[in-house]
Amino acid sequence: MQTIEFKRRPKIIAGYTIAGPKEGQGNFGKYFDYVMHDDIFGEKTYEMAERKMFEQAVTGALQKAGLKSADINLLLAGDLLNQIISSSYTARAFNMPYLGMFGACSTMAESLAAGATLIDGGYFENVVCLTGSHFSTAERQFRFPLELGNQRVPTSQWTATAAGAAVLSLHGKGASVCMATYGRVIDYGVTDVNNMGAAMAPSAADTLINHFEETGRKPSYYDLIVTGDLGKLGSDILIDLLEEKGIKLGANYCDCGHCYYSRRQDTMCGASGCGVSASVLNGYILNKLNKGEYRKVLFVPTGALMSTTASGQGESIPGVSHAIVIEAGE
Amino acid sequence: MQTIEFKRRPKIIAGYTIAGPKEGQGNFGKYFDYVMHDDIFGEKTYEMAERKMFEQAVTGALQKAGLKSADINLLLAGDLLNQIISSSYTARAFNMPYLGMFGACSTMAESLAAGATLIDGGYFENVVCLTGSHFSTAERQFRFPLELGNQRVPTSQWTATAAGAAVLSLHGKGASVCMATYGRVIDYGVTDVNNMGAAMAPSAADTLINHFEETGRKPSYYDLIVTGDLGKLGSDILIDLLEEKGIKLGANYCDCGHCYYSRRQDTMCGASGCGVSASVLNGYILNKLNKGEYRKVLFVPTGALMSTTASGQGESIPGVSHAIVIEAGE
Repeated sequence: MQTIEFKRRPKIIAGYTIAGPKEGQGNFGKYFDYVMHDDIFGEKTYEMAERKMFEQAVTGALQKAGLKSADINLLLAGDLLNQIISSSYTARAFNMPYLGMFGACSTMAESLAAGATLIDGGYFENVVCLTGSHFSTAERQFRFPLELGNQRVPTSQWTATAAGAAVLSLHGKGASVCMATYGRVIDYGVTDVNNMGAAMAPSAADTLINHFEETGRKPSYYDLIVTGDLGKLGSDILIDLLEEKGIKLGANYCDCGHCYYSRRQDTMCGASGCGVSASVLNGYILNKLNKGEYRKVLFVPTGALMSTTASGQGESIPGVSHAIVIEAGE
Repeated sequence: MQTIEFKRRPKIIAGYTIAGPKEGQGNFGKYFDYVMHDDIFGEKTYEMAERKMFEQAVTGALQKAGLKSADINLLLAGDLLNQIISSSYTARAFNMPYLGMFGACSTMAESLAAGATLIDGGYFENVVCLTGSHFSTAERQFRFPLELGNQRVPTSQWTATAAGAAVLSLHGKGASVCMATYGRVIDYGVTDVNNMGAAMAPSAADTLINHFEETGRKPSYYDLIVTGDLGKLGSDILIDLLEEKGIKLGANYCDCGHCYYSRRQDTMCGASGCGVSASVLNGYILNKLNKGEYRKVLFVPTGALMSTTASGQGESIPGVSHAIVIEAGE
């Protein structure tokens, strides 16, 4: 069994999102709490800007929850930067006990799964789950110097500049975290660092197949199944892989990477980065759940476990995806 | 509260250690399950050697536990390499659901804390906690090219080539994981990447102070309090910091980094790396607990959240330490 159930249904009592200007003009822009005027956010480096976004996400989520940082038992966070520095320095800033995680763009699910376990099991009262990404820090770490102005290939995705934080608690009002399906690391041999969707889709398929098998549910059980960030190509591959197993994703399926930017923004296959699923969850999805427009959501962030070192040594890029069942509060 | 209690007392039903030749000649050498003949371990690169060590640690721990990889609900693992590739590719090899973590050299504690929560809460049956490090991969990623043959400064520590895996379960025999104290990220402004001990000691002090306060225990409650990898200087600083708070560590205290290598091995301040606490726990400590020579151990792995990017941008190096209470089985 990869799926666990949270019987006491920890609540997401607050979520906060911050995004860059390009992201603010995208399809989810109106659901973000704060849209930055520029990507550098008043800092000297993009890495410092990313960290400032993380800090604002935590501050904003705490304010919405009506909590102080001393009320938080644990910060569960991760990001794409080497040694997850955005997360660690944010933990330093808030003086919160800290569990660092790395699941690439699946981190929002990883942190919710681990955080919900701690709340549901009665170990902690309040935890914060946090992740995000920044176009300019990720591109220069994983691909090319920004100054190179490299041409983008049709399979490429645009790393979103966005962050999201969620406060989980047993008390208070909000959508409930009901289940988590931990994913396996799946690798179909993709070596192209500009084709993250194809690298991640098999892991999303594996996690979804296991989730549906173990819960006995069908895709139609959910009002929304949202993967992300597979992008256009990756989500097409996912649909194909599931159809081979007799599982049909219907109109209730979307990939948040695919639909993150508007068509006119010309990002090839869509968005990628931890910030995509983090900002879609804490912006759009929570909004719809809290309004009762969605009742049952299956949230499946997908991560490409890409490394320049491993790629340089001839390795392919494995993916990992975790699924979280989130339901509207009573 | 940073401390949580595991009432059902998950058991470490098996631990396995693998180490390099230098580590095998050190003070804990005779407790390791396997000592490699050389650091490259038959692979083409040191990174591949590190991964092979991780895989052997998991295989060995499963064999000792009498379990197959399909019996494992979750692999909780992390390492020092960018994007924790040793852990992720090991998860791929064993086809296990995977929770990637990053806490630098505190990872063995992080994975035990999160793993014990999942077992204690009744969510999972068996999980594997895994971490390790390799001298040659860490040095070239964090400091200098190996070929440079840089002179080592008196405060430097030697990154150990070692890995350890532990199988946690509710059933079976073994030492019990009874409590965890999650640590905060503490930074006293150390910027010297060759002085990890000073960077980490304040976080170890903070976690220990909180642990003793929250549990009402004194250091004398434990047969062994083991930090690591603070090294000689770091553990001296820790003793000072605690004395300022009126807490005296006695003869039951040791730092596993400080006492990892023999004096003749000339490693300056001792050992560092995730592999140090992982191999000391799964080798020496479990051995002594299972024999009844220790009854109560406070295991406090310490992590330096060092990043070349952050250091290059003028940041200091924060530390994080988590404490785990492990008691001998009945």
